[in-house]
Amino acid sequence: MNIQAPYLLFIGDATDLLSIKMARSAADWSPEKCLGEYRLPGCTVTTGFPAMSIQEAASKGAKSLVLGFANSGGFLDEVWIPTILQALDAGMDIVSGLHDKLTNVPALVKKASALGLQLIDIRHPTARFKTGTGKKRSGMRLLTVGTDCSVGKMYTSLSLTKGMQQAGLKATFRATGQSGILVCGAGVAIDCVISDFIAGATETLSPDNDADHWDIIEGQGSLSHAAFAGVSLGLLHGSQPDALVVCHALNREHMRGLKHYPLPSIEQTIELNLTHARLTNPQAKVVGIAVNTSMVDEQEALLICGQISQRTGLPCVDPIRHGVAAILERLL
Amino acid sequence: MNIQAPYLLFIGDATDLLSIKMARSAADWSPEKCLGEYRLPGCTVTTGFPAMSIQEAASKGAKSLVLGFANSGGFLDEVWIPTILQALDAGMDIVSGLHDKLTNVPALVKKASALGLQLIDIRHPTARFKTGTGKKRSGMRLLTVGTDCSVGKMYTSLSLTKGMQQAGLKATFRATGQSGILVCGAGVAIDCVISDFIAGATETLSPDNDADHWDIIEGQGSLSHAAFAGVSLGLLHGSQPDALVVCHALNREHMRGLKHYPLPSIEQTIELNLTHARLTNPQAKVVGIAVNTSMVDEQEALLICGQISQRTGLPCVDPIRHGVAAILERLL
Repeated sequence: MNIQAPYLLFIGDATDLLSIKMARSAADWSPEKCLGEYRLPGCTVTTGFPAMSIQEAASKGAKSLVLGFANSGGFLDEVWIPTILQALDAGMDIVSGLHDKLTNVPALVKKASALGLQLIDIRHPTARFKTGTGKKRSGMRLLTVGTDCSVGKMYTSLSLTKGMQQAGLKATFRATGQSGILVCGAGVAIDCVISDFIAGATETLSPDNDADHWDIIEGQGSLSHAAFAGVSLGLLHGSQPDALVVCHALNREHMRGLKHYPLPSIEQTIELNLTHARLTNPQAKVVGIAVNTSMVDEQEALLICGQISQRTGLPCVDPIRHGVAAILERLL
Repeated sequence: MNIQAPYLLFIGDATDLLSIKMARSAADWSPEKCLGEYRLPGCTVTTGFPAMSIQEAASKGAKSLVLGFANSGGFLDEVWIPTILQALDAGMDIVSGLHDKLTNVPALVKKASALGLQLIDIRHPTARFKTGTGKKRSGMRLLTVGTDCSVGKMYTSLSLTKGMQQAGLKATFRATGQSGILVCGAGVAIDCVISDFIAGATETLSPDNDADHWDIIEGQGSLSHAAFAGVSLGLLHGSQPDALVVCHALNREHMRGLKHYPLPSIEQTIELNLTHARLTNPQAKVVGIAVNTSMVDEQEALLICGQISQRTGLPCVDPIRHGVAAILERLL
């Protein structure tokens, strides 16, 4: 994978911040790689980067158009094809995190090939995986897990990695989703792996390492999510984490995308994850709680984190507001 | 999918009965579709059907060569290609349950196309799936779950289906693996689905039905298997079973393929499966235990089943030796 910066972040006609997670992740964690965003009429959200047309971005040196939005199922809607063709004509590679492959659309393949440009489907693993072995690997691993999808597992993982590196520790972020891969340039989109190989692919992602090295593995989904729990369980087993950080978002009325499913409690999430984590690592423990408190004010955020910390006996922070020092202190 | 009988069952140089599960399943449950088996030197197991060469089978009317063996990872070894080409030359379709696709081998595609024959990769879903919804569907569902892989979930499911049909009930076997698909001609090989869609594909497999209709869904893997638990969990959530039957095999020293992992107890398996099943069906209950007792004599088999039944308070049978009447009685 050779993703060329700077990026023009294409966010379509999105109206939901969660749906442009991939574009926002690049904007927040690799701002030096981003040039601007391309929006369509009806779009009500932003990455914070200036809006520009494809021609304008191309004239400013944009090398890749990044399809930075998601929809349920990851379909490549035909309405985007003209935009993608236009970006190819303007000399940009195309980077997509959708399930549907760019390389399955003959018109795109033909034009990209004629112009010598890349169609990069970052969600689609090109490696060949084996089934899991469950064998203990050297080095240490931390996995973020969640009460739900889209509660901040990637941001927490990136914050922990940055915090450890700043403290002079050996730490590597291991991306398991398209946003993380776009931020760090490597990884495996675990929800796009054939289900027989979920644990095996995860084992490959964090191979044997130095005894004092930490792999910080980005979690996916939730063991309590009726659509995606299988992915979460395979990722948990393959990661064989020494440490877990439970991620949670406030004020969510139901599981993401499933209106009739309530969220599990943080305590239930701890118990469920520890039960399964101990299959491949009997020493697994939870070292902290990370809460997305962006929907309440600073005072309430501190109050809630304090309450959760008291209830669970674990450090509890909003990584964006409070940093992750308290969790790292407990961990190390 | 249009699988043409009769079959010539190709079992390669297999030395392990479990590895020719697919061939044996067809032999046991669809004997009317089988003509013979084709073995290579070194093969020490059998389906019970007469050994014959490809030419001999062709002259007796064989319509399909079935690759009826499996290896870890499901690779299509190059050593089989000459045999497959020979069968095509003899006028047979090729049916494979391996992960590797026949249709990815140019030499096979070219010859099959020239001769107007089919290459059928039954493990590879051709349907397009969506992510799970967790919505309650009409009709009733039973799922077989296991302490381990390859403990008899398919045989138990087929026995239960046959038993219900013989009792005049509406029941349909739903295949989730290549063997089951070969036996009944339809289904989804759930371990070959993209991991994001495990639960969603399973929902499609047992759609809304009559209130008094039972779908008997073939389980896969085990929640306690470090390589495959993710598949088992997605299948459990997507099946939303009203009833579970726990399957177990005697005298197994470790989890299949994982020498350092002991088997969970039947009680642990019940508890773990019920915990997760209740996410999508709060009424889920375990209605019986099915034990593969083939490695002990009849008297010991009865003794062990009796002990398990007493310990768990559930009917416990070997479906092949004792039938499934006791479980159906409890269920209905």
